Amino acid sequence: MKQIRRERERARTDRPDLDAVLDAAAVGTLATVLDGQPWVVPMLYARDGDRIILHGSTGAGALRHVAAGAPAAFCVTLLDGIVVADTLFDSTANYRSAVIRGHLTVIDPADAAYALDLMSDALIPGRSSEVRSSTKKELSATLAMALPIEPEGWTVKVRDAPPDPPEDAADGGGWAGVVPLRTVAGDPVSAPWVSAEVEVPKSVHRLVERT
Amino acid sequence: MKQIRRERERARTDRPDLDAVLDAAAVGTLATVLDGQPWVVPMLYARDGDRIILHGSTGAGALRHVAAGAPAAFCVTLLDGIVVADTLFDSTANYRSAVIRGHLTVIDPADAAYALDLMSDALIPGRSSEVRSSTKKELSATLAMALPIEPEGWTVKVRDAPPDPPEDAADGGGWAGVVPLRTVAGDPVSAPWVSAEVEVPKSVHRLVERT
Repeated sequence: MKQIRRERERARTDRPDLDAVLDAAAVGTLATVLDGQPWVVPMLYARDGDRIILHGSTGAGALRHVAAGAPAAFCVTLLDGIVVADTLFDSTANYRSAVIRGHLTVIDPADAAYALDLMSDALIPGRSSEVRSSTKKELSATLAMALPIEPEGWTVKVRDAPPDPPEDAADGGGWAGVVPLRTVAGDPVSAPWVSAEVEVPKSVHRLVERT
Repeated sequence: MKQIRRERERARTDRPDLDAVLDAAAVGTLATVLDGQPWVVPMLYARDGDRIILHGSTGAGALRHVAAGAPAAFCVTLLDGIVVADTLFDSTANYRSAVIRGHLTVIDPADAAYALDLMSDALIPGRSSEVRSSTKKELSATLAMALPIEPEGWTVKVRDAPPDPPEDAADGGGWAGVVPLRTVAGDPVSAPWVSAEVEVPKSVHRLVERT
């Protein structure tokens, strides 16, 4: 991530590369411009084919601004490893990142239930089939938004490699390599009111297995 | 992250809360405004007291724009758990996030070595004492930047709780709880040219222990 020149060399331009990055993460950073200033907020998201689904509260002023068609950029980053080079200068990180640029649109309230189901299933695979559908009251409190993925509207950058070899042999001889990082799920922790005999549902087992 | 109203309730306003979030992560999303459009890039960073240190290549046009005093927002997010509620609507995530707003400044080239050391040590604890200092050539290729942390220039939001209990008793009775997530380091992978007898340095052991 250190050198833009190198980042450029690591750009990926195939659409499946974009989908792979987007589908591997659950949270991204949404950026827009408010009164000429950059405005950012972390958000859970789900990919639905050629669009990113986001949601917030209908009471959130800034989100309403974004939903009303303001330009937006959505950034997703996965930190995959720490790259330990022979020099401080060449030390960096292995990562996958995606940026989607476009204009958010509000999802029609009639489709908000679909969006909420999708968000839940992206976070907790299959959860939408285990509990009741969202109520009208819940849906009316939800601002569901879509950011379209347009052909020229995205970039993907990936670094997945050992450190660069030392340019100067005098810098070599020591250890260099990569410390891989990954996200793991711990044992599910029951809410205080859930008795011990209630079984953990399949969706949660899937979530734990996936991570 | 779903409901801004709730996020507000989870805001943390003590400076140590900010430092704890910033010091727990290694990568954030830098946002600025370029030609009226939001522009974002993931970046490694380090906290240095009351400022965030970032660095890029001096060849990167957009970064130079940011460094020249354009307004910036830097967002750090740690996803700590998936919150499985009795309803889709109440399902969400446990997380820690910080946003720093301000104007980036370029760090004087004379201090760039300090910034590079700091970045390396934030990523790989103690690494700067194991390898040589950066050369003039390396430093001249590095654009070191600082984003000051000003008293009114940051927000921290944290959710660290079980799901909300069901509002309607009819929704209860099933399992609800949290699936904790954490980042773990795998075994260090040596670069192809490093022979098996070269020992992994202390800094890398520290990095693995910390994560």
